[in-house]
Amino acid sequence: MQRIDNFKSIIDKYKVVFFDAFGVLKNYEGLLPGIERTFAYMEAQGKEYYIVTNDASRSPAQLAETYHRGGLTFISPDRIVSSGMLTKEYLDLKVKDGIVAYLGTPNSAHYIESSGLHTLPVSDINSNNIDKVNALIFLDDEGFDWAKDLNKTVNLIRKRTIPVIVANTDRAYPLTISDVSIAIGGIAAMVESVVGKQFIRFGKPDSQMFMFAYDLVRAHSSVTKSEIVMVGDTLNTDILGGNKFGLDTVLVLSGNTLPKDVDTRITATGIVPTYICETAVISTGEFGF
Amino acid sequence: MQRIDNFKSIIDKYKVVFFDAFGVLKNYEGLLPGIERTFAYMEAQGKEYYIVTNDASRSPAQLAETYHRGGLTFISPDRIVSSGMLTKEYLDLKVKDGIVAYLGTPNSAHYIESSGLHTLPVSDINSNNIDKVNALIFLDDEGFDWAKDLNKTVNLIRKRTIPVIVANTDRAYPLTISDVSIAIGGIAAMVESVVGKQFIRFGKPDSQMFMFAYDLVRAHSSVTKSEIVMVGDTLNTDILGGNKFGLDTVLVLSGNTLPKDVDTRITATGIVPTYICETAVISTGEFGF
Amino acid sequence: MQRIDNFKSIIDKYKVVFFDAFGVLKNYEGLLPGIERTFAYMEAQGKEYYIVTNDASRSPAQLAETYHRGGLTFISPDRIVSSGMLTKEYLDLKVKDGIVAYLGTPNSAHYIESSGLHTLPVSDINSNNIDKVNALIFLDDEGFDWAKDLNKTVNLIRKRTIPVIVANTDRAYPLTISDVSIAIGGIAAMVESVVGKQFIRFGKPDSQMFMFAYDLVRAHSSVTKSEIVMVGDTLNTDILGGNKFGLDTVLVLSGNTLPKDVDTRITATGIVPTYICETAVISTGEFGF
Amino acid sequence: MQRIDNFKSIIDKYKVVFFDAFGVLKNYEGLLPGIERTFAYMEAQGKEYYIVTNDASRSPAQLAETYHRGGLTFISPDRIVSSGMLTKEYLDLKVKDGIVAYLGTPNSAHYIESSGLHTLPVSDINSNNIDKVNALIFLDDEGFDWAKDLNKTVNLIRKRTIPVIVANTDRAYPLTISDVSIAIGGIAAMVESVVGKQFIRFGKPDSQMFMFAYDLVRAHSSVTKSEIVMVGDTLNTDILGGNKFGLDTVLVLSGNTLPKDVDTRITATGIVPTYICETAVISTGEFGF
Repeated sequence: MQRIDNFKSIIDKYKVVFFDAFGVLKNYEGLLPGIERTFAYMEAQGKEYYIVTNDASRSPAQLAETYHRGGLTFISPDRIVSSGMLTKEYLDLKVKDGIVAYLGTPNSAHYIESSGLHTLPVSDINSNNIDKVNALIFLDDEGFDWAKDLNKTVNLIRKRTIPVIVANTDRAYPLTISDVSIAIGGIAAMVESVVGKQFIRFGKPDSQMFMFAYDLVRAHSSVTKSEIVMVGDTLNTDILGGNKFGLDTVLVLSGNTLPKDVDTRITATGIVPTYICETAVISTGEFGF
Repeated sequence: MQRIDNFKSIIDKYKVVFFDAFGVLKNYEGLLPGIERTFAYMEAQGKEYYIVTNDASRSPAQLAETYHRGGLTFISPDRIVSSGMLTKEYLDLKVKDGIVAYLGTPNSAHYIESSGLHTLPVSDINSNNIDKVNALIFLDDEGFDWAKDLNKTVNLIRKRTIPVIVANTDRAYPLTISDVSIAIGGIAAMVESVVGKQFIRFGKPDSQMFMFAYDLVRAHSSVTKSEIVMVGDTLNTDILGGNKFGLDTVLVLSGNTLPKDVDTRITATGIVPTYICETAVISTGEFGF
Repeated sequence: MQRIDNFKSIIDKYKVVFFDAFGVLKNYEGLLPGIERTFAYMEAQGKEYYIVTNDASRSPAQLAETYHRGGLTFISPDRIVSSGMLTKEYLDLKVKDGIVAYLGTPNSAHYIESSGLHTLPVSDINSNNIDKVNALIFLDDEGFDWAKDLNKTVNLIRKRTIPVIVANTDRAYPLTISDVSIAIGGIAAMVESVVGKQFIRFGKPDSQMFMFAYDLVRAHSSVTKSEIVMVGDTLNTDILGGNKFGLDTVLVLSGNTLPKDVDTRITATGIVPTYICETAVISTGEFGF
Repeated sequence: MQRIDNFKSIIDKYKVVFFDAFGVLKNYEGLLPGIERTFAYMEAQGKEYYIVTNDASRSPAQLAETYHRGGLTFISPDRIVSSGMLTKEYLDLKVKDGIVAYLGTPNSAHYIESSGLHTLPVSDINSNNIDKVNALIFLDDEGFDWAKDLNKTVNLIRKRTIPVIVANTDRAYPLTISDVSIAIGGIAAMVESVVGKQFIRFGKPDSQMFMFAYDLVRAHSSVTKSEIVMVGDTLNTDILGGNKFGLDTVLVLSGNTLPKDVDTRITATGIVPTYICETAVISTGEFGF
C-alpha cells in the first residue's frame, strides 16, 4: 500500500483505468470540479477508461448524458459498464419468454427489455398474468409504492419458483452531505430474508462486473489484468472486487471513505488497496503536461 | 418426542400452559372453532394459562377484547404477555425523559407511553425536536409511509446514538390462506443492516418473553419450570424458545408447520418439541369429562 | 451516558452490583491490583454482588477458588453465575436420561452431571452407544483433538436429532496482551454452519444469564431491576445484555474496550452504557471512607 | 425446467460441457461406473469439455492422474479448472514478494508457488519471519494441527493486514455414504468470523471460476455462453453459479441432491436448473450410436 499525492503518476503506470462513478467522478452535488482534466489527460496519453458502476436505474446512453450535461463530454455510452447491463445479459441468455416483473421506474425497465420478453411493474401483476411471470428484477428504489408492492413481491416469489435478480447490490446511497437513502439492494435483502430464497446479485464486488468491462477491453486490444487499475471510493465493493479480480486498485478519499477513517477501515476490514490517493482529480499544476 | 392425539392428556400433566396466539388459538379467519372447549377444560381443572405473543400492535386490554368478540371470554388482559409489554418495561426502566420516536399506528404507541416520555411518530421528527429523541421503536408495519418514513428512520439512527427497540421479531405474518405480509421485524432487520448498528429485540424465541410470563405465574404460586408447558405452531420461535427456557413444549400443526412437513422440518432444524399434537382444540368427544 | 472518574460513586447509587469477570476483575496476568478494595467497600456498605460470566470450563466452586488463590477471598461460589450453570439447569429440566456427549475437559463436564445422565467425551462415542446420545454440549476449547473430534461431532449431529448446547457464546478470549485464542463459541458457530441446524446458546448478552442472577437476588430480598447495575468491559455482551434486561450499565476500560476506541465503538454499534468508568478498582484515595 | 431421462440428448444441444467433479463424475467410492462412455461420446461428437472443481488440494496434473488411475484417460490437465488455479493467478498478479503462509499439505502449496514467492506452512511462521508474510491461504483441511495452527492463524491475521484467500469455498465434503468431513472453507469461515475481516473466496458459485473456464474455451474457438452447459449435483454452487454466469444448467441426482428431495430443494431455494437428469453416465443402450 502506497500513498500517492499525484493521481497522474498512477495513471501513467497503466494502459486502462476503471472508475467507480459515485464518490470518484461525482457526488450528491454533481461532477467533482476539475474531473474533466483527468479525462483530458487520459485522452491525450491514449489511455483507455471505463466507468464501472452499480447503477441500474438508467441505460448507458442516459448515464452518459448526465456526464455530458455536467460538462464531461468525453464519456460515451460504450465506456459505461453497469450492473443493469449484466441484468440485461442475464435476461437475454436465460429467460426465453413471458413476463419480467420489476420494481423500479418504467425508465429503469425500458433498457433491459429483450425481444420476446415483456417487462411489467409488480403493481400490474394479477391472478390473470402471474403464471406468465418468468423472472423478477429489483431495479430501483423509486417508481413504486413500497408498502403495497413489496408485500406483493413477497407473495409473488412465494408462488412462483423463478429467478430473482438484484440489479444493484448497494444497500444505501448518499443523498446530501448528511443524509442517505435506502437503495434497492437493501430492500432486496429484506425481501430475500423474508422469503428465504437465494437471489442473483449483479454489481461490485462481484467479479462479473469486472469481467464484463475486461471483455470490452479485450475485444479490441490485448491488455492483461496487470495493465489495468481500478479506482474507487469504497473498500468492500470497488477495492475488494478489483483486488479479487487481480487488478491493482486505487482508493480515493473523495467519497465513502473519509481521510480520518482510512487507516482504521483498512485494518478493520483487511481490504488493502494498491494505492491511496486523495482524489482522482488531476490538479491544474500537474495538468500542465 | 411423542405424538399425542389428545391435547387434553397433555394438559393433564402440567399446572400451567403457555399458548402462542396465531396458528394455535386463531388464524387469519378468526378463532379456531372449538378452542373455547380447551379453555373451559382448563378452567374446570384449575389449570393456569397465559397467551405469550409476539404482537406489539395493541395493548393487552385490546388484545383480550379481540378474543371476547370471537366468543372466547375466558381470556382477560392479565393473561396476556406480549413483546409490547417488554418494550414498555424497557422504556420504564431505561429511558428517563425526552421523545420516543416510533414506526406504527398511534394506537400501538399509546399503551407503551410512560410518565415523562412523549411518543411521536417518525414522520413528526424534524430538525427542531431530533435532539430530544432518546429512543426509537419498531412497533407495527402499519400507520406510516414506508418509503418516506423508513428513509427518515435510517437517517435518524445515523444521527442519534440511541437505543433502537424492535417490539416484534417476526419477519412475516399470514394474511390469508395463501398470502403473507411483511412484519415490522422484517422491516427492522433491513434498517439494521443498512445502518450497521445493533438493535434490541423483544419476542420469542428470546427468553425474556418466557421470563415475563414465568414471573407472573410465580407472583401468586410456587410453580417450577417443569410444571409448565409451552404450546406453539412455530419451531424456531415457540418451540426453540420454550425448550431453551427449560419448559416442555407442544408443537401443534394448525399453523406455520404443516403435517406433511413436520418430520423434515424437525430433522432439518434440530429443534425437537416434547410432543407433537394436531391441534390445541379439545374435540367434543374428549370434552365429555 | 455519563463519564464518571470514581467507581465508588456509581456503586453508592445501587443495592446490587453484577460484575463481568474477565477484563473487569482480572486479565491474562491475574486479578487487577487493588480490586479487593472494591469488594471490601461493598462488604462494608452492605452491597450485594455477583460475578456473571460466560465461563463454562469450571464449576462455581473451582472458579471461586481461583479468586481465593489470587487473594480475593470475598467471592464465594454462591456469588458466581456462569453459562455453565444454565447448561446444567437445561440438562436437569430437559434431558431425562441417556448420554450427554461433550467437547471439553473432563473437569468441565464433571459439574454439569445430573442424576440419571452420563457425560461422555465425543471421542468415546461409537456405533454401540450413539443411539443413547440425547444431547451434545460445547463446553471448552481444550481437552479434545480438534481435527478428529470436530469431524466426529459434525457426523454425530447429522445422525442424531438432539439438542446441541453451546455453554459459552464467546468466539475468542485474550491469552496475552497481544494474542487471543479461539473459544468454544467460535468453534460451535463453525459446526452450526456446517450442519445447518440451530444450536441453543447460553451466555451474555442473552437475558437468561441475567435472570438467573436476578432470581438469586430475589430469593432473599425484594430488589427491583432499577436497583441493580451491571459492570462490564464488552459492549456487545455485558452492556447490550444488561441494557436489554433493564439494568443500568457501567462500561469499564480495563479490558476489551480501549480508552482510545470507546467513543467510536459506541457510535458504531449504537450500544450505550449508562456510565463509562476507567476501572472498577477503587483507588486508595477514595477508599479512605 | 425439464426432466430428461437421457443425458446424451442434452449434450447433443451444446458445443461445450462443463462438469463438476464430485457427485457427477465420481463419489467417495471412485469414478461412477460407465462415466467413460460419456467422455467417449463427447470425443466422438467433437464436443469440448472441462472439469470445473472447488478442489485446491492438488495441481491439475495430479487431479488428472486420479482420473487416469480410475480408467478415465480422456481427462488431461488442461481440461481441469480448479479454485486452486484461481488462487495461483491471484498470487501471480497481486503478491509481488515475501512469504505466502498457508494451511494445507505441502503438496497443496507446491503448485501455487510463483517466482519470487515463498510458501511456508503457518506452523513455520514465527517472530522472525512474520513481517515478511504478505498473504495467507486456506488450501486444504489436512496437513496441519487444527488446534495449534488455527489459533496461530487467528493471531497472524490480527497482526498483519494482508489478503487472506480461501481456495475452496465448500464447508464440508462427503467421506463415505453416511459421513462428511469439515472442508477448509468451513474452517476459514470460522476464522473469518473470529477476526472480523473479509476474506477473498475462490470457487463456485462465484463467476470467476466460470470465467476462467470460458476464457480457455474462447482461446481457441468462438463459442458463446448459450452454447455451453454446466452439469452439477449441487444447487447452490454448480447450478446457481452456472445460471448467474448465463449458462444453461443440468442438475444430476448422483450426488448432493437426492431424487426424493429435488423438488422441495428447488422450491425452497428458488434455484432452478434448465434440466434435471438422473446421471451424467450415458447408458450402454444409448451409447450404441
